[in-house]
Amino acid sequence: MTVYLDNAATTALSGSALSAMEPIFKENFANPSSSHSYGQRAKKALEDSRKTIAGLIGASPSEITFTSGGSESDCQAILSAAKNGAEIGKTHVVSTAFEHHAVLKPLEKLQKEGFEVTLISPDENGIVSPEKVRRAINEKTCLVSVMYANNEIGAIQPVAEIGAVCREQGVIFHTDAVQAAGYIKLDVDRDCVDMLTLSAHKFHGPKGIGALYVRKGVPIDSVILGGAQERGKRAGTENVAGAVGMAAALEEAVSGMEQNNLYVKELRDRLEAGLLSIPGTSVNGGANRLPGTVNICFDGIEGEALLFLLDSRGVCVSAGSACASGSLEPSHVLLAIGKTREQAKSSLRFTLSRENTREEIDYAIETTRELVSKLREAK
Amino acid sequence: MTVYLDNAATTALSGSALSAMEPIFKENFANPSSSHSYGQRAKKALEDSRKTIAGLIGASPSEITFTSGGSESDCQAILSAAKNGAEIGKTHVVSTAFEHHAVLKPLEKLQKEGFEVTLISPDENGIVSPEKVRRAINEKTCLVSVMYANNEIGAIQPVAEIGAVCREQGVIFHTDAVQAAGYIKLDVDRDCVDMLTLSAHKFHGPKGIGALYVRKGVPIDSVILGGAQERGKRAGTENVAGAVGMAAALEEAVSGMEQNNLYVKELRDRLEAGLLSIPGTSVNGGANRLPGTVNICFDGIEGEALLFLLDSRGVCVSAGSACASGSLEPSHVLLAIGKTREQAKSSLRFTLSRENTREEIDYAIETTRELVSKLREAK
Repeated sequence: MTVYLDNAATTALSGSALSAMEPIFKENFANPSSSHSYGQRAKKALEDSRKTIAGLIGASPSEITFTSGGSESDCQAILSAAKNGAEIGKTHVVSTAFEHHAVLKPLEKLQKEGFEVTLISPDENGIVSPEKVRRAINEKTCLVSVMYANNEIGAIQPVAEIGAVCREQGVIFHTDAVQAAGYIKLDVDRDCVDMLTLSAHKFHGPKGIGALYVRKGVPIDSVILGGAQERGKRAGTENVAGAVGMAAALEEAVSGMEQNNLYVKELRDRLEAGLLSIPGTSVNGGANRLPGTVNICFDGIEGEALLFLLDSRGVCVSAGSACASGSLEPSHVLLAIGKTREQAKSSLRFTLSRENTREEIDYAIETTRELVSKLREAK
Repeated sequence: MTVYLDNAATTALSGSALSAMEPIFKENFANPSSSHSYGQRAKKALEDSRKTIAGLIGASPSEITFTSGGSESDCQAILSAAKNGAEIGKTHVVSTAFEHHAVLKPLEKLQKEGFEVTLISPDENGIVSPEKVRRAINEKTCLVSVMYANNEIGAIQPVAEIGAVCREQGVIFHTDAVQAAGYIKLDVDRDCVDMLTLSAHKFHGPKGIGALYVRKGVPIDSVILGGAQERGKRAGTENVAGAVGMAAALEEAVSGMEQNNLYVKELRDRLEAGLLSIPGTSVNGGANRLPGTVNICFDGIEGEALLFLLDSRGVCVSAGSACASGSLEPSHVLLAIGKTREQAKSSLRFTLSRENTREEIDYAIETTRELVSKLREAK
């Protein structure tokens, strides 16, 4: 049996997303910037996708820029807000200690360039306090960037409250909603979000496509310079098939969200209970989590060793994020919520999707139980 | 009849590229950065694609970085070489006046930051003289960027000679080979190229994927910061399906290159002769051109008007590049080779591919002839 429990790393492409992409691959292949009717037909597919995605997050189509994915969107949002901030003497950015590297790395770059960066620590449940955000903001702050839901522990942030604080303080608010999209109803107005990052392959869309929402009136610079595509906000021939697949996947995820979340959460709770019935285990983070995520600490176990043994038995999970895999460092997310290096290195992330079944979950529980015993006996 | 003659803007996805992508979409969907065997299987597909592409341009796999396309590759090459140059006091870049905007826009950014940029004018045939490149280089030059073949007139540059000049002068040489790949045998060693840009959708691969070749030892920075993907040279979950489709398309194009070029050139020559038999027409640029490109000036005709009429009759061509369409400015390429604004605005680009037929070409000739007469009569 193969059990894929690494859906926070990436998800299987949905059949409906692939079906939506096929006509683009096979017939509607022109360059949407071409003036002729072939080009305009491709442009229509692109603009329809933009409209769909905009509608699903409460935005206007002109506020959606297609990018190559979440990392590009994060970089563009952060570097652009910082550059525009610096031009009016605002050289301070507020973010959190457990953001994705696509946020942390641009922040490191800004620090090297002389920006001041305040990284707020989440609490032990992985929640960032809006009050801490308020206290971190000063008259030089040009940007607050707080992720919508954490990619390792699934912790859902009080985004609307943080957004309200930023709005009140007149500071641009960016949120990396890569893990939240498809699982949480996004609404940029409700949440007072000025910029929001999406990545298609996290909600059963294709890889290589994402989007950046930028509220009308908020200045945005391109990180990829060249042609005037995407209203000058992102150069390069548009990935029409990607955009169409992304829109179809998001539409499918949002329309089935309530039902899928119930289904996935039930499976996740079953998995969590099963894993916690193994002695010496605990959940990393609190209860306010994405429905499909559980991050477990197995006391005294080397997480990577358990991961490889599980893999040999067909169970795919992860230690930390895929983007940081291969790194020998313990997860910065788990350290940020107060775990020790040992605990972090003994932890594995299990992330489910609507495609998992009860049989798979039971197999994963029993296999994990057996392998943990084996590893502990071997010590 | 529909006749697609805008293959420099983009090409139809080849059947073999799509077939290569399908297993990635349907089964091999994991994140190549995931440690488990699903991830490693995706990684293998990615690395096999890298190896294929490297082999086809005479490079090592580790010298190939996948990007989201030509614009990203160009930006990364130029901004990175400039930044690394500036660190050792080298703040001068040499390029040409008729590069793609994905080269010209980053150069404008560099100028604003204090770099000196020398843009060499090509001759009336659209050829950049290696001697002019030599004379433009000074002790502060950190980069020479000259495209392999121009996107509007198809002019093939003496890249090997320019590369030799740069090598001799110890200056990094980048070439945007977006239009050349699949039509000219690329060899980074023969051409003394240090960085080379590829875009899949120009050779019947998918949109949203490209590559940047960077010679071993040449420093390169990422424009998209985040995870350590692509050996730290480009963050973001890799677009595995795109990479696989790109490799399949390039392999197909290169293996059939000789035969396809003969076929396409014969059709292009037929088209060119037919169009030149219309009174008051001339070819923009010289004879040393990509096999599928012809750019024609129709004296006294508004190019855009002819384009739209041709489109209404099913013939898809372009005025200037797709990336600059919508712009009211005449083509910077045609101005750079000495054409007047009037001539530039009276010109259309016809770009063929292996998928065009003799019947299509004859239809395009006759339709153009008829419409040009009509437009001239209407004056």
